[in-house]
Amino acid sequence: MAWDFSTDPDFQAKIEWAEAMVRTEVSRLDLLWPHDVYKPLTEAQRAVVAPLKQQVRDQGLWAAHLGPELGGQGYGQLKLALLNEVLGMATWAPRIFGTQAPDTGNAEIIAHYGTPDQKAAYLKPLLEGEIVSCYSMTEPSGGADPAVFVTRAVREGDDWVINGEKFFSSNARWADFLIVMAVTDPEAPLLDRMTMFLVPANTPGVQIVRNLALFGEPDEEGSHALVRYTDVRVPASSALGEVGKAFAVAQTRLGGGRVHHAMRTVGQAQRALDMMAERALSRTTQGTLLADKQLVQSFLADSYIELQQFRLLVLYTAWQIDKFQNYNKVRKDIAAIKVQTPRVLESIARRAVQVHGALGVTTEMPLAKILSRGLSLALADGPTEVHQVTVARQLLRGYKPAEGPWPSEHIPTRREEARVALLGEGV
Amino acid sequence: MAWDFSTDPDFQAKIEWAEAMVRTEVSRLDLLWPHDVYKPLTEAQRAVVAPLKQQVRDQGLWAAHLGPELGGQGYGQLKLALLNEVLGMATWAPRIFGTQAPDTGNAEIIAHYGTPDQKAAYLKPLLEGEIVSCYSMTEPSGGADPAVFVTRAVREGDDWVINGEKFFSSNARWADFLIVMAVTDPEAPLLDRMTMFLVPANTPGVQIVRNLALFGEPDEEGSHALVRYTDVRVPASSALGEVGKAFAVAQTRLGGGRVHHAMRTVGQAQRALDMMAERALSRTTQGTLLADKQLVQSFLADSYIELQQFRLLVLYTAWQIDKFQNYNKVRKDIAAIKVQTPRVLESIARRAVQVHGALGVTTEMPLAKILSRGLSLALADGPTEVHQVTVARQLLRGYKPAEGPWPSEHIPTRREEARVALLGEGV
Amino acid sequence: MAWDFSTDPDFQAKIEWAEAMVRTEVSRLDLLWPHDVYKPLTEAQRAVVAPLKQQVRDQGLWAAHLGPELGGQGYGQLKLALLNEVLGMATWAPRIFGTQAPDTGNAEIIAHYGTPDQKAAYLKPLLEGEIVSCYSMTEPSGGADPAVFVTRAVREGDDWVINGEKFFSSNARWADFLIVMAVTDPEAPLLDRMTMFLVPANTPGVQIVRNLALFGEPDEEGSHALVRYTDVRVPASSALGEVGKAFAVAQTRLGGGRVHHAMRTVGQAQRALDMMAERALSRTTQGTLLADKQLVQSFLADSYIELQQFRLLVLYTAWQIDKFQNYNKVRKDIAAIKVQTPRVLESIARRAVQVHGALGVTTEMPLAKILSRGLSLALADGPTEVHQVTVARQLLRGYKPAEGPWPSEHIPTRREEARVALLGEGV
Amino acid sequence: MAWDFSTDPDFQAKIEWAEAMVRTEVSRLDLLWPHDVYKPLTEAQRAVVAPLKQQVRDQGLWAAHLGPELGGQGYGQLKLALLNEVLGMATWAPRIFGTQAPDTGNAEIIAHYGTPDQKAAYLKPLLEGEIVSCYSMTEPSGGADPAVFVTRAVREGDDWVINGEKFFSSNARWADFLIVMAVTDPEAPLLDRMTMFLVPANTPGVQIVRNLALFGEPDEEGSHALVRYTDVRVPASSALGEVGKAFAVAQTRLGGGRVHHAMRTVGQAQRALDMMAERALSRTTQGTLLADKQLVQSFLADSYIELQQFRLLVLYTAWQIDKFQNYNKVRKDIAAIKVQTPRVLESIARRAVQVHGALGVTTEMPLAKILSRGLSLALADGPTEVHQVTVARQLLRGYKPAEGPWPSEHIPTRREEARVALLGEGV
Repeated sequence: MAWDFSTDPDFQAKIEWAEAMVRTEVSRLDLLWPHDVYKPLTEAQRAVVAPLKQQVRDQGLWAAHLGPELGGQGYGQLKLALLNEVLGMATWAPRIFGTQAPDTGNAEIIAHYGTPDQKAAYLKPLLEGEIVSCYSMTEPSGGADPAVFVTRAVREGDDWVINGEKFFSSNARWADFLIVMAVTDPEAPLLDRMTMFLVPANTPGVQIVRNLALFGEPDEEGSHALVRYTDVRVPASSALGEVGKAFAVAQTRLGGGRVHHAMRTVGQAQRALDMMAERALSRTTQGTLLADKQLVQSFLADSYIELQQFRLLVLYTAWQIDKFQNYNKVRKDIAAIKVQTPRVLESIARRAVQVHGALGVTTEMPLAKILSRGLSLALADGPTEVHQVTVARQLLRGYKPAEGPWPSEHIPTRREEARVALLGEGV
Repeated sequence: MAWDFSTDPDFQAKIEWAEAMVRTEVSRLDLLWPHDVYKPLTEAQRAVVAPLKQQVRDQGLWAAHLGPELGGQGYGQLKLALLNEVLGMATWAPRIFGTQAPDTGNAEIIAHYGTPDQKAAYLKPLLEGEIVSCYSMTEPSGGADPAVFVTRAVREGDDWVINGEKFFSSNARWADFLIVMAVTDPEAPLLDRMTMFLVPANTPGVQIVRNLALFGEPDEEGSHALVRYTDVRVPASSALGEVGKAFAVAQTRLGGGRVHHAMRTVGQAQRALDMMAERALSRTTQGTLLADKQLVQSFLADSYIELQQFRLLVLYTAWQIDKFQNYNKVRKDIAAIKVQTPRVLESIARRAVQVHGALGVTTEMPLAKILSRGLSLALADGPTEVHQVTVARQLLRGYKPAEGPWPSEHIPTRREEARVALLGEGV
Repeated sequence: MAWDFSTDPDFQAKIEWAEAMVRTEVSRLDLLWPHDVYKPLTEAQRAVVAPLKQQVRDQGLWAAHLGPELGGQGYGQLKLALLNEVLGMATWAPRIFGTQAPDTGNAEIIAHYGTPDQKAAYLKPLLEGEIVSCYSMTEPSGGADPAVFVTRAVREGDDWVINGEKFFSSNARWADFLIVMAVTDPEAPLLDRMTMFLVPANTPGVQIVRNLALFGEPDEEGSHALVRYTDVRVPASSALGEVGKAFAVAQTRLGGGRVHHAMRTVGQAQRALDMMAERALSRTTQGTLLADKQLVQSFLADSYIELQQFRLLVLYTAWQIDKFQNYNKVRKDIAAIKVQTPRVLESIARRAVQVHGALGVTTEMPLAKILSRGLSLALADGPTEVHQVTVARQLLRGYKPAEGPWPSEHIPTRREEARVALLGEGV
Repeated sequence: MAWDFSTDPDFQAKIEWAEAMVRTEVSRLDLLWPHDVYKPLTEAQRAVVAPLKQQVRDQGLWAAHLGPELGGQGYGQLKLALLNEVLGMATWAPRIFGTQAPDTGNAEIIAHYGTPDQKAAYLKPLLEGEIVSCYSMTEPSGGADPAVFVTRAVREGDDWVINGEKFFSSNARWADFLIVMAVTDPEAPLLDRMTMFLVPANTPGVQIVRNLALFGEPDEEGSHALVRYTDVRVPASSALGEVGKAFAVAQTRLGGGRVHHAMRTVGQAQRALDMMAERALSRTTQGTLLADKQLVQSFLADSYIELQQFRLLVLYTAWQIDKFQNYNKVRKDIAAIKVQTPRVLESIARRAVQVHGALGVTTEMPLAKILSRGLSLALADGPTEVHQVTVARQLLRGYKPAEGPWPSEHIPTRREEARVALLGEGV
C-alpha cells in the first residue's frame, strides 16, 4: 500500500481524547495561571495538575516523544506530530503531557551522554516533571553562531572554574540546575573547543543579571535570563559527555526541537483560524456579515490554504524522520518547516487580529500573543534566514552546473538536437 | 496502516519510465513543433507520434484518466496525479499519453450523456486522438457566470436553430465538432435554461470571427476563437443530454479539469525550479557563484517550500477524491488547489526568470512562457477570486457564530468559568 | 515656482530644535514613565514637564495643529507634518508639544460647536493640558459603523437620561469629562439620529466595567474602557452642537486624526529603521557583519524605499489639505495614507525585530511595541479594508465605463481606427 | 518658498499638449507598426512621422533630455520626468519626441567624448533620428559585471583588431554603427582595462549570430543580438574617449538611463491602472459590477497607492539631480527607483490582467505586454538585487555601529541614564 493521508482509528481515538482534554481542562490552566507554566507548582496547582497527568498516563500518552526506555511511548515522529498539534492549543499542555521544553531536550542529552551518577541526580526527576532545568548556551555577542562564544572553563586540580556570561538562559530563575556550554580549549577547532557542564543553580558565582521578558509578558515574569558566571567552581565529574565535545551534544539536542515547534504551531494556527471563522460568522458591519465580505473571505481562504499545506509538509517531514531514523537525511525538509513555522503562524494570526477589530489587539483575546509567538519562532533555534540558506544548500546537492555556456534547457541548442533526432541529419 | 507518503514500487517504475520518455523524446516535439499540439497531425508528425503513443499503451499508461470501460486504466486520481506531474513537463505529453484537454473532458461528457449514435460518431475517434473537438460555452459578456449567457437555440420543427456568439472557444479552428451551450428556455431557472448541442464544424452559419492568441503566441497561431453562430440549424438529435440540462453537463465536465491543471502545474513548476538551481550553480558574478548569494538562496528555498507544500496538497486532494468518489465532498480542497495553482507557478517561474538574467525573458528559454501559463491558469475555469470565495464558504460550514456578545475564546469570560471549575465557586 | 521638496530654513531650524529636544529630553520621559502619558501628572512629573512645555512655547511650537484663535500657530498641515514626524519619535512628545490626542480632537469640536459656557468649563483647561478628556462613541456591537449604535438618551423635563454601553472609551479612567454619542431619535435617519453630550466623569451612573489593555501593556495599565451608562442624568445644556447632529460633529473630529497618525508614523518607522541600520553595522555572525549579508541588505533597502515613498505621500496629502482647505477634496489620499500607515510601520518594525535577533522580541528594545502599534493603527479610526474601499470609490469617480462591448484600449478595435486615420479608408 | 507639488502652468500646458498628442496620434503608430519602433522608417512611416516630429519641435519639446548645445531644451530632470510620464504611454513616443534609447545615450557619450570627426560622422544624424546605433557591451558570460568581459582589441600598426562575442546588443540588426567595449590591456586594473570603439556595422567580421526576441515578440522581430566580432579591423581613430577608459564612458551613459526608465514606467503603470478602472466599471458578474466587489476594490486601491508613492519618489529623485547636478550624490534614490520600477509595473499590470479575465492575457489587450516589460526592467541595467545592495550600502553611510555591547536604544541602559538626568543621582 502507499499514499495514505488517514490516521489509524485507535490512535485517532487517542488524539480526540487529547483534544477534548486540552480544549476543556488544560486550557483552564492557561486562563488562570498564564505565567506559571515553567515555574515550580504551587499546592493549588499541584492539586489540579496531578490528576490530569494521571489521566494522560492512563491513556498511554505521557512523554510521547520519548522511547520506552525513558518511560515514553515510542510512537515515532508522525504520531507525535498528530499529538503535538493538539498540545499546541494550550501553553500548559506540554507540561501535562510530559513533553515540556526545554526540560525534554535536557533530559534527552542527559539520557544520551550522562554518567550513571548524573542520571540518578537529574534525569529521573526531570522526566517526572519534578524539577526544572535550564540550557545555558547562547551568549550576548551572538545567538546563532557558537564560533563567537567566549565563556571559559579552566581546569584547576579536580575542578573546572567557569567565567563568562550567557544570554537567553530560559527559566534559569526557576531551574535546579543549568547546562552550561564553555570553552575548554580555545585553540582547538570548533568541534573540540567546548564542553557541556551540569551546574547546580545554587553554586556560588551563578548570578542572574536580568530576566528578560518577551513583549507581552509582564516584566516581572520575564524568564529569559542574562546569567553571569563568576569563578563558578564545579567538580570534573560535572562534564556532560566528553571534554571538548559540547558541539556534538548540542546538535543532538537540536534535532527534534525545530520539528516539535512546527507540530505545535499547526495547532496554534488552527486555533487562530477557528477564532477568525467564528468571528466572521458573528459580526455584522455596514449591513453584511463579515463572512460575506470578499476581503474577509480571502483572509479565510488564504489562511486555510497556508495551514493545510504547512500541516502536510510537517507530517511528511515527520514521516521521513521515522523512515530514515536520521535527522541528517531530512535536513532540507526540517529546515523548510523551520522557515515556514513563523510565517504561517504570523500570517494567520495577523488576519485573525484584523477580523476581530480593536478587540483583537487587546489582552482580552489570545490573538496578539499568538502573533507574538510567531515573532519568537522566527528567531528561536536560529533565525529564518539561516534556515533558508540551509534549504538552498541541501536542495542544490541534487543539481550540477550546466555543461557548456548555455543552460541545459536552452531552446536554440536543444532544438537543433531535436531536429536531428526526429527528422534526421540532413533536414 | 496509515499515513504513507510513498508510491508503490510498481507504479513508481511506470512513473520513472514516463519521466524519461517525456524528458527526452516528448520534449523534442515541444522544441520542433511548439504551436502544433492542438492541430491535426502532419504526416511527419504522425510518423513520430504514433510509435510514441504505442509505447505509452504498451506501458499501460494510455488515457490514465479514463476508466477501463472507455479504454483507460482506472488508476484513480492519486496515481493520475503522480503521472500528471510528469506530463506537465512537456506541452505535447498529454497528447502522447491520451489525456489531452479539452478533448478529454468532451469525451467524458459524451460518454456520460451521449446517445449510442452520438458515441459512434464522436466518442471513439476522440478517444483515439483522431479528431479534435471544441467546447463552446463562454460568452463575450462574461466568462465565469452562465447567468449572463444569451446565445439562443430555438426549436423549428425537428431542428434547433442557434444564434449567438461564443468566446474563448479553444481550438475551434481545428475542431471537427463543437459542443455549444445555448439557451433553450429563457424564462426557466438557470438549472433548466440551457441545452448542450453537438454541432459539426462545417455546419452553415458557424463562423470564426477571430482566433485570439495568448500573449507569447504568434498572432497567426491564436486558437481561442470568437465564434459567431448565425442561423445554425442542427437536428433535434444533436442535443447532448436532456433539453434544458446543460448546467448539469457542464458541472460534470469541470469536476476533474481543475485538479488536472494543478497536477500538471506541479511538474511545470518543478521544471522551472530545476532550471533555477542549475543556473545558480553555473553562473558567477562579482566573484561569487549565484548559488552562494543569500538572495538567490532565498529564491531557491522559498520556491522549494512553495512547491513541496503545494504538491502535498494536490496529492491529498486527489486521495480524497479517490476515497469519497465524489467531487462535491472535496470542493474545499479542489478550490484551494485551484487558487494555489497559478500562484505557485507564477512565483517560482518569476524567480527563475530573474536568476537567468536577460536570457530568462527571451524566447530562448521556456521560463517566460511558463510564467505566462501561470497568468492563464489564474483565469481559466474561473478567476482565483471566485475560488477563494468557495474555499471560504466551504470552510465556514464547519463553524457557527459565537453564543452571546463575546467570542468563545474571550479571556475575561472564560477565565471566570475556569476559576469556578478549578478552584470552586467561592474563590 | 513649482515642485519643491525642501523646507524653508527658518522652519527647518525649528524642526531640528524639536528633534534634538525629543531625542534627548522627551525620550527620557518614555523611559521613566512609559505608562503615564495619558494620566494626570504627579508632582515629580510636573516638575520635569512644565519647563519642557515652556521651551516649546518659547520656540513657537506649542499646539501647532491649532489656529492662532485657539492659541496655536496656524502653520497648516504641511509644516505640521514635518513637526509630527519628530513628535512620533517619543510617546510623551505630543503632550509636551500640546498636541495630545484625544484631547486635541475633543478641544477642536468644543471650539467649533461649544456654547460659551461649555468653552469656559472645558476648552481652556483642555488646551492647557490641565485636564484629561474621553471620547466615548464606539459600542461593543460594532466599531466602525455608527448605524449599529444603540446607547440611548431620553429627554425627561430639562434633562437627558443616558443608558447604554460604550467600548474603547480611551482614558475614561483618568478623564474629567466624557463626550458621549447617544441616540436621541431612533426613528430618524442616521444624520439626525444621535446627539453628542458633555458628561462630567463623576456623574452618577457612569461606570467603568473594564479597562482593556493593548497587548504589551500591563493589564493594570489598560486604558481603553468599557463604560456602562446607567440612568446618567445631564442637563439639556450638556448637548454639544445641535440635538440630532452628532454625526456632523464626529466627522469634524475625524478629519485630521488619520492624517496626524500617518505623520507621526513616519517618525516611528524612521526610528525603527535607524535601529535596524545600527544593528546591521554592530553585529557579526558567521564571520560577516550583518550589514554585508544580502538578506539584511534587502531588508534595509526595502524599508528605506517603503518609508521614503510613504513620507512623500503623507507630505503631498498635507500639502493638498492646505491647498484645498477641505478634507473632502483630499479623501482619496487621506484614505490612501490611512491604508499605508500600519503597513509601513509593521513592515519596517518586523524587519528591525528580525535583525535584532531574540533581543528584538523582548521588552528591552522598543521594537515589538512599535510593531504592535502598527497592529492598532490598522484598526483605529476604521480598519484598513474600509479605507481601501474608500480609495477605490474615490478613484473610480475619475473614470467611466467603456462604450460598447470592448475596452477602449482593445487592440483590434483601435487598430482599425488607426489604419484609417494614418493610411486612409481604402487600405 | 518650499514644498510644492504643483507644476508651473506654462509647462503644465505643454504636458497636456504632449499627452493629447501621444494618446491620440502617437498611439496609432503602436497599433499599426508595433515592431518597427527601432527600425529605419519606411516611406509610409516617414510620411506620418515627420509632421509629428515637427509639431513636437514647434512646441519646444524635442529632445527634452538634451542641453541646448545639443539641440535640446535644458529643462532639467524634473520637467523631463513630467514629460517622460507621458512618453511612457506609447512605444513610439520617445522616437517622435527625440528621446529614443539607446540612441540618446549613445549620442550623449559621443557628444562628451567624441573627436570633431566622430561627431561629424555620427552625432548629428543620431540626434536627428536619421540613423540607428547599437551599444555593444554585455557579454554572454555575465551581464552586470564588466570584470568578466573578455572581448579583446589588439593593436596592429595603426589599427585595432577586435575579437569576441557580445550579447544583448540591442538593434544591432538595424544599426549603422556599434559602440563596442573591448579589453585593450588585460593586465590593467578594471578602470584602465577596456576601451570603447566606434565600429561601422558593415565592417568585415561583424556577424550577428542570433537576434533574440523578448517573450511576446515574434521571433523574427527579435532585436537583441548575439554579435560575434572576428578579426574586426578599425583604425586607431575609432577609439571613443581615451584608450583604457571605457569604464568612465560607460558610467556616463548609465547615469540617466535608469531614471528615465522609471519616469516612463509611471506613465505605463498609469495606463494599466486606467484600463483596470474602466474594466471594473464596465463588467458585471454574478449580479454585481466588478467595481463593487471588495477584492477588485483592493486591487484598485493598492495599485493607486503604489503608483502615487512611486511617482513622488521618482519626482523627488529628479528634483535632487537638478539640485545637486551630480548623479553620484543621488545614488541611493536612483537605486531605490530602479528597484521599484519593475515592482510597481508588474504589480499593477498583474492586477489589471486579472480584472480583464481571459481577454487580459491575449494579444488583444496591451496588458500582458506591459507586465512583460516589467520583467525586463527588473534585469535591464542590472538586476533588482544589485540595486537593493546599493540602496543598503548608501543608506548605511549615514550610520555607525553602537558603542558598547548594547544598541543605543537599549531600554535598561537608557533608563538608568534617564533616571539620573531627570531625578538626580541618589534616586
